[in-house]
Amino acid sequence: MRFDQLARTQAAENSKPGIRHAPARDIAVPTYEVSPEAQALIGGPYPPHMNADPQNAAEWKELINRRAALIVAALPGLQEKLGVTVQPAVIGGIKAFIVTPRSMPEANRNRLLVHVHGGGYVFQPGEAALPEAVMMAGFGGFKVISVDYRMPPDFPYPAAMDDALAVWKAAANMADPKNMAIFGTSTGGGMTLAMVLRAKAEGLPLPGAIAPGTPWSDLTDTGDTYQSNEWVDNVLVSWNGWLGRAAKLYAAGHDLRDPQLSPIYGDFHGFPPTILTSGTRDLFLSNTVRTHRKLRRAGVDAELNVYEGQSHAQYMGNVDAPETREAFTDIARFFDAHLGK
Amino acid sequence: MRFDQLARTQAAENSKPGIRHAPARDIAVPTYEVSPEAQALIGGPYPPHMNADPQNAAEWKELINRRAALIVAALPGLQEKLGVTVQPAVIGGIKAFIVTPRSMPEANRNRLLVHVHGGGYVFQPGEAALPEAVMMAGFGGFKVISVDYRMPPDFPYPAAMDDALAVWKAAANMADPKNMAIFGTSTGGGMTLAMVLRAKAEGLPLPGAIAPGTPWSDLTDTGDTYQSNEWVDNVLVSWNGWLGRAAKLYAAGHDLRDPQLSPIYGDFHGFPPTILTSGTRDLFLSNTVRTHRKLRRAGVDAELNVYEGQSHAQYMGNVDAPETREAFTDIARFFDAHLGK
Repeated sequence: MRFDQLARTQAAENSKPGIRHAPARDIAVPTYEVSPEAQALIGGPYPPHMNADPQNAAEWKELINRRAALIVAALPGLQEKLGVTVQPAVIGGIKAFIVTPRSMPEANRNRLLVHVHGGGYVFQPGEAALPEAVMMAGFGGFKVISVDYRMPPDFPYPAAMDDALAVWKAAANMADPKNMAIFGTSTGGGMTLAMVLRAKAEGLPLPGAIAPGTPWSDLTDTGDTYQSNEWVDNVLVSWNGWLGRAAKLYAAGHDLRDPQLSPIYGDFHGFPPTILTSGTRDLFLSNTVRTHRKLRRAGVDAELNVYEGQSHAQYMGNVDAPETREAFTDIARFFDAHLGK
Repeated sequence: MRFDQLARTQAAENSKPGIRHAPARDIAVPTYEVSPEAQALIGGPYPPHMNADPQNAAEWKELINRRAALIVAALPGLQEKLGVTVQPAVIGGIKAFIVTPRSMPEANRNRLLVHVHGGGYVFQPGEAALPEAVMMAGFGGFKVISVDYRMPPDFPYPAAMDDALAVWKAAANMADPKNMAIFGTSTGGGMTLAMVLRAKAEGLPLPGAIAPGTPWSDLTDTGDTYQSNEWVDNVLVSWNGWLGRAAKLYAAGHDLRDPQLSPIYGDFHGFPPTILTSGTRDLFLSNTVRTHRKLRRAGVDAELNVYEGQSHAQYMGNVDAPETREAFTDIARFFDAHLGK
């Protein structure tokens, strides 16, 4: 009878139009056709820094460096596993890494990808930027330039975008832009979209395709899954924790709805073919599907893949999860279909 | 401080791997880039029959007829608005309707669609089947055959599938199957997938494309959003109400995991190009994305569109919502790209 009682209570609470009242719930880890590795990600505890509230630059840096150290420690193993080498470089005057796979399909010899990492515009400085670039190089067989763009607390907007554009401009002379793609996840997905907006505005060449994974396309807390997946997503958990604070730190007084900060408010006409990736529990599922819809309405060839049960960016959370290989392989196939050779 | 307190409680409750503990929440209606018509659907109260538990055939029929009457009453207005006529017919020995738009693009003259309606295998008998067929005919400019398949309580599985296949067989002689598509939402989406599985198994011609909208691809309560969107979706609300009861009534003792009942357990290799549609609050979002993933893995050209904030099948909930026109227009465009002429 427990369900019947709950149903009665819920029906009474949801008998009027407007706000949906959802009860407290226990949500089990999905197991069917979800790999054990993905199950471990989906069922993981909240991250300890979920509600971090650094009070000054030193506290931000302590948190940023602590998280970066964990990522950097795992990097050699990841590179080894995927047969990928990394060389620091300066491209267009900006710090970057050149990420090269041991083996590359013939079709990719004249192709070049540009990667902008995630991390809420604050996390993943230096080599901590690299895991996604290494996975794309390894799974996709592409050469990748990963941009080590400047970030808060020292360098708020527009430093990150200035750096990314400087690298794009320089990289677009290293290969035919039609043979190039820009990709990134979360903040890197938002930056990917903002880079195309800015390249359009400045008359720069556009890439042949882009892959903004679960893009932070709206830095304000606008979007239904900011609410419906709050406390359900175990990666970002809520906009009201560190995430919203990072948005404000990055914006440094700029309007969060400026299309260079929240590209969903920009004009997507003329965008290259785009592949988007998200998960059913992703706090940014709305960021992703709103971007997808707006691209379709602008006549852009746009593809959307959503993974069962996954929270934010968990499609790249474990290199050993079959879902990770699938996600990168699908993106690589999309690039192969749309990039010149 | 309320958020900080909740964050502490939540972090403690989600500090161990496994089940996610989500707190009770108030979820506002999304307003940005969501039309007023869609907002009204998204913010609507739960349907009164959400937890209906008819005890016998007479009680089922009373509920079925009461709901059908509401739909049938609105049908003339819908047909008028979209300029669509409906003729009852018998096709392959099965009751059906021929749905014809007033105007039809030249490219669609030799095309023909087959529609299988939704309603949990119990609802929408007779003319109540028609709203989706009328919208596809009107927005897409296609001639449509809508199957009035037999349903429980009088006719459990496999009657519905037998009828749908009989119509498909007969219809496949009325046009070139390459010029034909099968479409339907929810139960109609599950049936669309099951029809292709059965046509494959019986060596019948396959359609040139299909559009299973938010398909009931898994009649068991397997799938993450059966939990994560329970009480959030205001159309189906929960598998544990009338929906799960309808599944068992329809299956009548057959294994719910039989691919003819739950096509997600079937083999999608060789399927025609497929377009899927869902919403971020849809109880069947997992049914949809699991189907999408399985199609991709089978090498099928499969496209996924997810609407912001929408619960189950709300993309066809109001003919006046711009989102409804968009959803049908996107499906029509997909058909146009993949069907022969």
